[in-house]
Amino acid sequence: MDIIRLVRSAASLTFVLMIAAAGPAAHAAESAGLIGFTAEAAKQQRRLEADYRAKLSAEDQSQWSEQLTASAHHAGSAQTRRNVELIAAAFREWGFDVAIEEFDILLPVPLERSLELLAPTTYKALLEEDIVDGDASSAERDAVLPSYNAFSPDGDVTAELVFVNYGIPEDYEVLERYGIDVTGKIVIAKYGKSWRGIKPKLAGEHGAIGALLYSDPADDGYAKGDVYPVGAFKNASGVQRGSVMDMPLYPGDVLTPGKPAIKGTRRLSLDKAPTIANVPVLPISYRDAEPLLAALGGEVVPTQWHGALPITYHIGPGPAKVRLKLAFDWQRITIQNVIARLRGSEYPDEWVIRGNHHDGWNHGAADPISGMVALMSEAKAVGELAQAGQRPKRSLIYAAWDAEEPGLIGSTEWVEKHLKELDAKAVAYINTDGNGRGFASVGGSHTLEAFFDEVLNSVSDPQTLVSVAERLRAAIAVNGTPERRKDMESRETLRIAPLGSGSDYTPFLQHAGIASANLGFGGESAHGSYHTLYDTFEHFVRFRDPGFQYGVALADMAGTATLRLANAEVLPFRFAGLVDNLQLYLKEIEELAGKQREDAERINKLLREDSYALALDPQKPFGPPGAKKAVPHFNFAGLKNAVATVATAATRLDAVLQPGSIAPAVLEQVNRELYRSERTLTAEEGLPGRQWYRHQIYAPGFYTGYGVKTLPRVREAIEAELYDQVDGEIETTAAILRGFAAHLESITALLVSG
Amino acid sequence: MDIIRLVRSAASLTFVLMIAAAGPAAHAAESAGLIGFTAEAAKQQRRLEADYRAKLSAEDQSQWSEQLTASAHHAGSAQTRRNVELIAAAFREWGFDVAIEEFDILLPVPLERSLELLAPTTYKALLEEDIVDGDASSAERDAVLPSYNAFSPDGDVTAELVFVNYGIPEDYEVLERYGIDVTGKIVIAKYGKSWRGIKPKLAGEHGAIGALLYSDPADDGYAKGDVYPVGAFKNASGVQRGSVMDMPLYPGDVLTPGKPAIKGTRRLSLDKAPTIANVPVLPISYRDAEPLLAALGGEVVPTQWHGALPITYHIGPGPAKVRLKLAFDWQRITIQNVIARLRGSEYPDEWVIRGNHHDGWNHGAADPISGMVALMSEAKAVGELAQAGQRPKRSLIYAAWDAEEPGLIGSTEWVEKHLKELDAKAVAYINTDGNGRGFASVGGSHTLEAFFDEVLNSVSDPQTLVSVAERLRAAIAVNGTPERRKDMESRETLRIAPLGSGSDYTPFLQHAGIASANLGFGGESAHGSYHTLYDTFEHFVRFRDPGFQYGVALADMAGTATLRLANAEVLPFRFAGLVDNLQLYLKEIEELAGKQREDAERINKLLREDSYALALDPQKPFGPPGAKKAVPHFNFAGLKNAVATVATAATRLDAVLQPGSIAPAVLEQVNRELYRSERTLTAEEGLPGRQWYRHQIYAPGFYTGYGVKTLPRVREAIEAELYDQVDGEIETTAAILRGFAAHLESITALLVSG
Repeated sequence: MDIIRLVRSAASLTFVLMIAAAGPAAHAAESAGLIGFTAEAAKQQRRLEADYRAKLSAEDQSQWSEQLTASAHHAGSAQTRRNVELIAAAFREWGFDVAIEEFDILLPVPLERSLELLAPTTYKALLEEDIVDGDASSAERDAVLPSYNAFSPDGDVTAELVFVNYGIPEDYEVLERYGIDVTGKIVIAKYGKSWRGIKPKLAGEHGAIGALLYSDPADDGYAKGDVYPVGAFKNASGVQRGSVMDMPLYPGDVLTPGKPAIKGTRRLSLDKAPTIANVPVLPISYRDAEPLLAALGGEVVPTQWHGALPITYHIGPGPAKVRLKLAFDWQRITIQNVIARLRGSEYPDEWVIRGNHHDGWNHGAADPISGMVALMSEAKAVGELAQAGQRPKRSLIYAAWDAEEPGLIGSTEWVEKHLKELDAKAVAYINTDGNGRGFASVGGSHTLEAFFDEVLNSVSDPQTLVSVAERLRAAIAVNGTPERRKDMESRETLRIAPLGSGSDYTPFLQHAGIASANLGFGGESAHGSYHTLYDTFEHFVRFRDPGFQYGVALADMAGTATLRLANAEVLPFRFAGLVDNLQLYLKEIEELAGKQREDAERINKLLREDSYALALDPQKPFGPPGAKKAVPHFNFAGLKNAVATVATAATRLDAVLQPGSIAPAVLEQVNRELYRSERTLTAEEGLPGRQWYRHQIYAPGFYTGYGVKTLPRVREAIEAELYDQVDGEIETTAAILRGFAAHLESITALLVSG
Repeated sequence: MDIIRLVRSAASLTFVLMIAAAGPAAHAAESAGLIGFTAEAAKQQRRLEADYRAKLSAEDQSQWSEQLTASAHHAGSAQTRRNVELIAAAFREWGFDVAIEEFDILLPVPLERSLELLAPTTYKALLEEDIVDGDASSAERDAVLPSYNAFSPDGDVTAELVFVNYGIPEDYEVLERYGIDVTGKIVIAKYGKSWRGIKPKLAGEHGAIGALLYSDPADDGYAKGDVYPVGAFKNASGVQRGSVMDMPLYPGDVLTPGKPAIKGTRRLSLDKAPTIANVPVLPISYRDAEPLLAALGGEVVPTQWHGALPITYHIGPGPAKVRLKLAFDWQRITIQNVIARLRGSEYPDEWVIRGNHHDGWNHGAADPISGMVALMSEAKAVGELAQAGQRPKRSLIYAAWDAEEPGLIGSTEWVEKHLKELDAKAVAYINTDGNGRGFASVGGSHTLEAFFDEVLNSVSDPQTLVSVAERLRAAIAVNGTPERRKDMESRETLRIAPLGSGSDYTPFLQHAGIASANLGFGGESAHGSYHTLYDTFEHFVRFRDPGFQYGVALADMAGTATLRLANAEVLPFRFAGLVDNLQLYLKEIEELAGKQREDAERINKLLREDSYALALDPQKPFGPPGAKKAVPHFNFAGLKNAVATVATAATRLDAVLQPGSIAPAVLEQVNRELYRSERTLTAEEGLPGRQWYRHQIYAPGFYTGYGVKTLPRVREAIEAELYDQVDGEIETTAAILRGFAAHLESITALLVSG
């Protein structure tokens, strides 16, 4: 037992003793037991969890994985139909009411893909992944999707090439200092540092007429480790597929924003669909990228831009000239979500929703089947317990989403279709997706932060046999930055990450305002197969989670959370954690503004004093940056006051949320208002320029894609230098928080009066 | 004109006005003029400098460079004899008394070099640099030295290979955590991060039986820029030669430590010479390194160890097995320093010494000829001025050192031979070496910091036409870290770097205690040719200093410094700058101890709590670090008090060092005691374990080689975890500083009484 554990146990012990001296209070029960359960109910719940855990089987997961990854199973494929039947049949067998909910969505697939280097040398890109020894799946050709970026437009473009590093905003600032304009050019960008869809979006915004994406071996290839099939990492032929739909605007079917893609919904015409990428874009292997990059002239790249190919990287433009030709079948396909319901014994109209997508890019053994089989493990055990009389109090919905890969389509359409009912009934949504060996990872709504800390403390790590919380704490203690370590030591619970985007929680959290979480394991499983032809069962069992022990751990973690949410007397929403995180975000944003102001002042001063002209090499074309907009001081007071108001309300409410002490007459209403509290963090009008995103605390970044932006109105206004809008966005956000605080106060009033 | 300049000018103006109001004082003259000169003398000196500057010729430098680099001119070569004659004749022509001072030294040259990969594949290393287009010098074969490390022992070793990254102490700590022992193995290390001699030294100390060194293309090759001859950087065949003599123990002839290598000096037997490397070592190209590295198995290296070869780097040991066979001719050769004297008109027994080495590894156009021709430019102009009646007041000695490359041999033997006379007469030593386009760089004794700031403000940058000081300040303002910028803004003068080792200032500064400086330009000249076959005139004029404009700037900077030292009425030693730097070093060392203590406590706590076992991947052989020695608190009070004592003495002395106000009777004695003040910073017993290094403020690091360690007794005792010695080293260093302060007080007493 380590010292941290000793200290923490000792603290709990003291606390228990103090309470014991004061008599068996409900508060003590909660502290010693589980949030939302009386002491007695907590004991019962823990027994249930032990029964549950005993039913989880790695062997099951391995068998299902082998079946589900037998062939490529992208949305619309034959294997997907088979998988949907298999999953639906299994759920039925385990006692669930199963529906297959279908949507008709737009999903382009390639008809023609060609890429040629025309000058100064010639090369025709292979655009083909190798068959490798020991991986029979990699030999499959007919059923697999070739490498492409879904929602690239058709195009036939010929132009000089420009290397734009990762193709993110700061890279274009560097290009500007080199005097390089990508207008009329085709850009080639490395994968990484942002979600891929940002790269063609920015390229188009800067005037480029096409984009190539590739994984540099520095980031994902031989410089990271031995390549497949010797090791896990991306070999010279591997290509990361993926959607480039403009998901930060809205995810889901591109033709039916905000509405379900079903009969009767009016669809946009294809040329009006705003989330289709604005330039043709194709992902390629580093084998295909190398001759193109080697043919570039112009300036040598800045040191940090260099990759691991054995060449000197140049920026261009030209003399490399390429022709990129892409044509797609803009087909409408039917996608199928499997929705399995288990009616709650006491609160059937309160829904705890669990989901994982079932579609992959090809065989998808890691992404998404490793998460899918963990969800199936969980559903099987929960179903069997229910059949044996241990039915959860609230209704459970287990969902297997289709068409996540092209743009969270299955989950988004489903949420859009059931929005009203979800608004009333959804308690929480727990998502999983690809899984691997390593450390627990929890992102989610901070109203559930304390709850998930308890879950992390209840789940054992299969390799070290301590709780996954303890393993996480050790990892932070050993590898964390001093700031991270200090932060950990200053808090009772582990900090959970805010959610941006990248999986099916997005429509639940950011559109419907349902408290959500995303759970998984990783960090000790090698990457490299992501969205390639090599995300196969063969690769998975060698490099990701041999023996599916972390598949079982994930089922344990997600199932424990699901069953506690399902059975808690008082739902485990607690608000101190949210307050603490809001304070952190506010501090970050103030620091961001301060840093931006300081940088602008410094750069403008250096420009005025002509320091760049003296400091920069006069023989190089790298010039000074442009003058910066002066950054005014913003009035953060409204937001600070609002957070303080939330803090007061949270303290009052958390103190009275005592199971066993709430009058049955108000209990159901209290629980409903607890889970509906997340709804009050949303606004009907959404975020500026993107109405679909309603959550006012968490959003994917408009220019990061997956990366989260907390308090997005304020943060993104500052980042985008829209300084005259900042005070307004502060007030809008503050009003949301005041509304949230009022909602909490109304629950407290219910409890105090009740 | 920039704002900083405006502010500084305004400040000077105010100061001048204040002084003017108080009457024309000597102090005002110094502030408005030059340190150590009266106002009138400063005007005269500036006129002299203008005459001097007008005589500097880029054309001269280009011609000399072409002549001196006509063939390879390593110590002992035919071209070196020709160069010595050319240089000596030129000095004579310019009016100098020229002596060629010879020493007989040991200098091994290769008889046999072979390296073979024996398993699991085979490869015979080429050990040969390519002839490249457009560089006729690269075709020379007979006269050139092949690539080798001078002072490697003979050897014929066969063993498994281990990749040790840069082969520096922290790399061996990482290897230990992997459980990898290099005993009985041959290591392969990248060049970089330390002086090269440290690598075989550490390899041997860890039990290895041989070492290979190579330049990874990530550090010096295609990942840095286009390779030669397209660009300047190291091509696949290029090899960095260089000495691996254990210079941190003592430089110079390995057989005559501390004594001149002349007739009558007793020489060590070869097997007793402690500075010969302890294992056979050979430098190779990245073309030769690649098959060896590709043949390594074992664990994949940590991410930061990865280089830019297109392979996955592994640590080994084996299965790669290599045979390294080296045999040398352990010849005694005669080396020749050219010593040119210009007798001072007033103080012939006060010597200002200027030096640059003349030997190269091959053609040596950058290293050392670019510095050598600047020195010749300077000597020519000074000589002509003297012939025209403007003879410097103090004697000047211009030295062209031989055998710097194998181990600072020419300069070291000369200093050892003339130690007593130098002790009495040497005012200062100013060194130059390789030069290039870019920013001024000054390292040196901080008793001359204010003086060199004045020099930097007097020399124009040829590209931007502002002073080189202003350009440096702009570069720090634009590119410096926040700490560096803040430091600059907090000081009147630019901070000069302390000197470690790496060129001929070492025997002057660190053995003889002569205030020294090392001057050069760089930062905009491409690297890659260093110590290869490609350090040619052809390469130099394309990539290092086209048009020799920075050669002229270097002659300007070094000559201005030399002439001011030669003519100042009161020598320009001032002590406030040293105090400020001593305070900085003391702070650094306290922080070092604090950091080491904190790290030790943290690591030991993590070990006690078993956190590593939880945080590290149980499937990888990377284990926890070893337990750390607890770091006691040290008593820095003695050193702080000593620095305070120096500060008091410095303030008092600086205030009375007014030219024009010192009685002629004591002036000569004051000047002598001023320049001899640096001697009082040395100790006869040297540093622990290395008596040759006498300076107690500056030393090359025992495990960095070139990298400086300030207050070395204390700093290195802490770094080496010799905690029980630290308080003693603090007291030893404090005693030195108290002696220095007493010396300053004695000068003040002379002035006040005189």
